[in-house]
Amino acid sequence: MHIKSLIKRIDHIGIAVRDLVSVIPFYTEVLGLALKGIETVEQENVRVAFLQLGDIQLELIEPLSNDSTIAHYIEKYGEGIHHIALETSQIKESMEHIIRNEGKLIYDEPHTGAKQAWINFIHPRFAHGVLFELLEKKTL
Amino acid sequence: MHIKSLIKRIDHIGIAVRDLVSVIPFYTEVLGLALKGIETVEQENVRVAFLQLGDIQLELIEPLSNDSTIAHYIEKYGEGIHHIALETSQIKESMEHIIRNEGKLIYDEPHTGAKQAWINFIHPRFAHGVLFELLEKKTL
Repeated sequence: MHIKSLIKRIDHIGIAVRDLVSVIPFYTEVLGLALKGIETVEQENVRVAFLQLGDIQLELIEPLSNDSTIAHYIEKYGEGIHHIALETSQIKESMEHIIRNEGKLIYDEPHTGAKQAWINFIHPRFAHGVLFELLEKKTL
Repeated sequence: MHIKSLIKRIDHIGIAVRDLVSVIPFYTEVLGLALKGIETVEQENVRVAFLQLGDIQLELIEPLSNDSTIAHYIEKYGEGIHHIALETSQIKESMEHIIRNEGKLIYDEPHTGAKQAWINFIHPRFAHGVLFELLEKKTL
């Protein structure tokens, strides 16, 4: 199966921030976006806030410890846009397609991300500096 | 007028790259996206390529000279996600709203961007590290 039929849309754009509470007012009061929820993702050691923008979401990501990936990212680059999440109907097939094209993934198997989705990441060295998340919504 | 009624959707995500020709195959062949066009934006000293992803576009941006803003960005941070473009129905009102909220813009007046749109940028220091473009499509 070609990945063209697997990747459907952008689900969200991840933005690394030091502190959710001090950043959320810019999005809600200045940009006028609706805050859809805040949740902790234990596996990634982060707390995230979702803001609705059209049919996609901005995901603000706050590190919960100094040794989380997001803390390292902020230390190196400062706060800013961290990743683009691509919704796929079949994450396993999408992962296999990337590997067949000599791409690298961050995880060998999908992890559980925010909102109980299956996630993985394409290695940014393979994607010319962009961190793309692959995301498959779990069917309940 | 509140900005909630001005900002409608994400128009595109800008991605800084060193060389369009070497990067486009990742997007078309690996991710399977359609290349919608390539154009030169003289005012910004860049060449851009648009790829369709659902109803938004990825804009790959290649610097055309070493002293362009994008060249400086790549020198400092490497290739990667550069900005998020927010479509507004009224760029002037959006700019006034940002300024009323003590925000800073890059330009005093809208510039002409790719695809003949009016554009401006919110200063990333005001937006916690994110460069947001404001974009109003010109009506022909």
